[in-house]
Amino acid sequence: MTLHLECADELLSTTRAVRKRLDLTRPVPRDVILDCIRLSQQAPTGSNQQTWRWLVVTDAAKRRALADLYRATAADYFPKVRDRARERGETQTAKVYDSAQYLADHLHEAPVHVIPCLLGRPPEGPAVRVGGFFASIYPAVWSFNLALRARGLGTALTTLHLFREAEAAKILGIPDDVTQAALLPVAYTIGDTFNPAKRPPPETITFFDTWDSR
Amino acid sequence: MTLHLECADELLSTTRAVRKRLDLTRPVPRDVILDCIRLSQQAPTGSNQQTWRWLVVTDAAKRRALADLYRATAADYFPKVRDRARERGETQTAKVYDSAQYLADHLHEAPVHVIPCLLGRPPEGPAVRVGGFFASIYPAVWSFNLALRARGLGTALTTLHLFREAEAAKILGIPDDVTQAALLPVAYTIGDTFNPAKRPPPETITFFDTWDSR
Repeated sequence: MTLHLECADELLSTTRAVRKRLDLTRPVPRDVILDCIRLSQQAPTGSNQQTWRWLVVTDAAKRRALADLYRATAADYFPKVRDRARERGETQTAKVYDSAQYLADHLHEAPVHVIPCLLGRPPEGPAVRVGGFFASIYPAVWSFNLALRARGLGTALTTLHLFREAEAAKILGIPDDVTQAALLPVAYTIGDTFNPAKRPPPETITFFDTWDSR
Repeated sequence: MTLHLECADELLSTTRAVRKRLDLTRPVPRDVILDCIRLSQQAPTGSNQQTWRWLVVTDAAKRRALADLYRATAADYFPKVRDRARERGETQTAKVYDSAQYLADHLHEAPVHVIPCLLGRPPEGPAVRVGGFFASIYPAVWSFNLALRARGLGTALTTLHLFREAEAAKILGIPDDVTQAALLPVAYTIGDTFNPAKRPPPETITFFDTWDSR
């Protein structure tokens, strides 16, 4: 077995949202993307339905159109959340927003946009059932991201374009009965050394047997 | 760097939903769970909000109560979906349901039930925004699962108890403004050799630039 604890932990703790360190000049071979999708297919889906589909966008005009949509939403959203984070003294989050703005500005330059989708639309009814629906795609999206990392590539899991999902669907010819889950700008990373993010100890977010009980 | 491609790929392709090979007799130390939660905290969250919380249930009466809820939903759901899968000749899925039934029957015996939660409730409005909400927990849930695997433990990502989320909340004292995302029965696995699942080639689920274009 080639599965070592140190390696697994490094993979899980150094796969960061890469926004500024995407190499926007280096092409990404199609086979690398397909290889990461192949690994993503080992993630679980509800009832083993495997209703995931992946749209891989390299066409420059389409990437620009998607980036324009993304930026239109970001323009409404980022300054508000960044200022709130600064007011609250959440410096890590404020920094994330500066980095997110950089990514938005350069989004069309990312050599590949990957859009994971699910066949079908989220069920009507209690919102939590919608959670069960999306539980069939985000583990695969995260596996795809981890597989990229192991190959010297990176991305950031963004969902902002979903506010304009119908417009994105039009650009890409996605049918009405398909649900987009994210937009992943993919590129080789500049350097391959990434440090774990600073996080509070797990004890601070974990309860035992009863809510609020430590 | 201890991050090797072979090891990453093995982790991603052999972390299976473990239902029959959970060791129901071996206790799971609290520190192992906390260590896996620590790794899950490196997964991304929307706006870096880190609103995840983890509820770790070892109390036998509570595990039994959760398992009873789970089985009540499963009794409605499993036979229907299994029969449909058999009719359609989806033998892999039909087999998954037999295994899921086994897990349901033994759920109270799993030494730990882990319930990942998000502070807040899913937003009202277009269902796709609900997806953005849950994108802040399922990557972490999957990282937790991958971290378990690297330590000789396993689980299955289940969402069935969410159909009775309010009843589960009552058992565990979870407030109304918190959202449960899954129920993970955690245990050491019986043996540590797992094979990748059989999947269709990635080319069959991937489109380029336009939907349906290969």
